[in-house]
Formats: sequence, C-alpha cells, structure tokens
Amino acid sequence: MTEQNGYHLKSNGDHKDEYLFDLNLFQSIFKEYSLKDSKLHDNIYDEKYLFRPLAISDYDHGYIELLRQLTECGTITYDDFKKRFNQMKQCSNTYYILVIEDMNIDKQIVGTATLVCEKKFLRQLAIRGRIEDVVVHDRCRGQQLGKLLIDLLTQFARDKCGCYKVSLECKDHLVSFYQQFGYNHEDKQNFLCQRFKHLSTNQQETTE
Amino acid sequence: MTEQNGYHLKSNGDHKDEYLFDLNLFQSIFKEYSLKDSKLHDNIYDEKYLFRPLAISDYDHGYIELLRQLTECGTITYDDFKKRFNQMKQCSNTYYILVIEDMNIDKQIVGTATLVCEKKFLRQLAIRGRIEDVVVHDRCRGQQLGKLLIDLLTQFARDKCGCYKVSLECKDHLVSFYQQFGYNHEDKQNFLCQRFKHLSTNQQETTE
Repeated sequence: MTEQNGYHLKSNGDHKDEYLFDLNLFQSIFKEYSLKDSKLHDNIYDEKYLFRPLAISDYDHGYIELLRQLTECGTITYDDFKKRFNQMKQCSNTYYILVIEDMNIDKQIVGTATLVCEKKFLRQLAIRGRIEDVVVHDRCRGQQLGKLLIDLLTQFARDKCGCYKVSLECKDHLVSFYQQFGYNHEDKQNFLCQRFKHLSTNQQETTE
Repeated sequence: MTEQNGYHLKSNGDHKDEYLFDLNLFQSIFKEYSLKDSKLHDNIYDEKYLFRPLAISDYDHGYIELLRQLTECGTITYDDFKKRFNQMKQCSNTYYILVIEDMNIDKQIVGTATLVCEKKFLRQLAIRGRIEDVVVHDRCRGQQLGKLLIDLLTQFARDKCGCYKVSLECKDHLVSFYQQFGYNHEDKQNFLCQRFKHLSTNQQETTE
C-alpha cells in the first residue's frame, strides 16, 4: 500500500490480499459463464451487480445483516469478523465465500453462497465440496441471483477445486430449485444430525 | 529430536508434532469416557487397542489399506500421504482423524473415524461438525470399536470443538446404529448431492 497526500492507493497485490480467495480463479469461471447466460451478461454490463469473493471490508457493507435473513448471527464485532475471516483464509483451498455487491447502493452485499472444500485421503486424495449458507437479500429476489450463485459455485467446485462430489442441505420447498443444477437425493443415503445447545466463544477458544 | 549413537530419542514435543491434532485434547475426553464404560476400560487396560490421533507413520501401518475397506483409494504414495497430512494439519482446528491401533499386531491401524469442523460466521462464529469416513477392520468387528469411535468423536465435537451441530451421512442399514448416539433425521430437511466423474490430481493442483 502506498500513501500520498493522505490518499491510500492500493496496488493490485494489496487488493488481492483483501479477498478470502483468489479473484482470478473465480473470474475465469465467471467469464465462461457470462458468455452463455444473457441475463448475467446484461446485469454485469449494466454494472448493476458485481460477483466476487468476500472481502474484510464487507463487514461494513451489510454481509452479516444479510446472513441474518438466513438465520441468527448474534453479536459479531469487526474484530470477531476479521479474526474468523483470517482463520478461514489460513485454511488454504477450503473456504470460497462468494458475494454479490450492489454497485448502485453503496456496495451493499445483497447475495452470498459458500463452497467449503474438505480434503480427504480416500479416492486418491479427493476433494469433497459442500454448498452452505445461500441467501439473497429480500429486496433483490426474483432476479435469478440465487441461481447464478449456485451455478457459478458448482462449476467452480468441479473445475477449479476438482471436487468429486458436491452436496447441500435444504428445506423441502427448495428441492426443485436445487435439482435444476444437478443436485438430487441419493438412493439409500441418509442424512442424520444432532444439535447441541451450549456454544460459548470460550469453548471454541480452547482448541485454538 | 536428539540422536545418540545412532538411536533417535524422540522428545515429547517431537512426538506431539507427529500427530494430526493435539493428543492432550483427545486424552481428556478419552479419560472421562473410559471411567464410565467398562468395556473400553477393559480393552485399554489389557493394552489391546490404543485410541489416538492419526500420525504420519500410520501410512506404514495399514491406514490406507483400512480405508480401502470403505471405498476406493487409488494409488497413494508416502509423499502424497505426507503432503495431504500436512495440508490438513495446516488447517487449524479442522481435521480430527481418530485411529485405533492394534497394540498386539505391529501397530496395525484397525479403525478410524474423522471429525471435520467447518468455521462459520453465522450463529456468532459457529463451528459445524461432520463425522466422515468411519471404518473398522473386518477382522475386528463385533467388539464395539465403531461405537467407541462415534461416541468419542461426538463428545469431542461438542466439548472440545464447541460444535453447535454435528451431522453424518449413512446408508439405510446404519441409521439405527447412529441413532443410539443421538443422530436423527431432521424434519423437512433434505440432503442433495451431485457427483463428477473427472478428478485428476492436476486439477486440484491449480488451486494450491
């Protein structure tokens, strides 16, 4: 970062570091995709929405508020956010959080979806992907933004991360939405779960 | 590591580094558990089985061969194994691979289960756990080793990792097995999946 007369001029390098994952990796998927999808093409060339990796500065542009439309988030300070962001970034090739920035409304974050990649030994050191935490701002629904997020992340998982399998969990009414991208129930496969009530930040810290 | 007259004498520190995760974290869960479970207690005090984190040296003690009883593994060289082990270790507080060593048969690995922890922003920086890749050697079945692996990892996820939720996928015939540990289907929740056929190591490398 260079500073002249009080202005911060970010070099490309600095800007790249701000993102959770490599912008270039994502852009190549995005370019391919926008060539075949005219709706996406129109949105982008109108400079209406920007699809990009999550940045630390998105804390100030409504990222947490957007997550609150999905589920509870509690109190998350800027320091909490930055710490978790950096923990995710330190897990290389694992967390791919995609966001949609509304370029006309003060860079507000109006959509997000996460791809989490798990490293395995089996299947010759396979990578297993999971789509998590998909949400589009309620004022921006009906514009196919959710569809774009899922399509782009699925293609990213397959082509850039080399996932042999990508899965997601969803409520009944969203099954048909996800089926259009190739996601389906698998025969004789069960998904089981248990929830714990505790959860203090202190407990997490013991394993830091 | 100190070396005297050709012998390698490992300090505790070196030995600790060999493991995928902190042995002490696991041991405290294990001690609590063995006090209330006489079968586990008997096995341990017979010095029959040792429960511990995965070590790099387990490559030479049948860890991959054990995984082959679960699914295909392809060719995995020692260098491949070591590289993936270190990638997992670099993702702090993420990969907890538990193994069972048969202390009477040349340290052979006869059981394993993995807890993968995902870091989230939502629910006040929550940790979401997943149980993966559970397998007990076919010659050691019927001794409740699988039960111990799942019980220990579930307790570990709750008490040491602070997971608010732990999930797993299993075939129909294993549902009742997992239900005894508190895992259940959730109402109106769907698990959807898609698989990709490719998967060359080269593709994974592009995101390194």
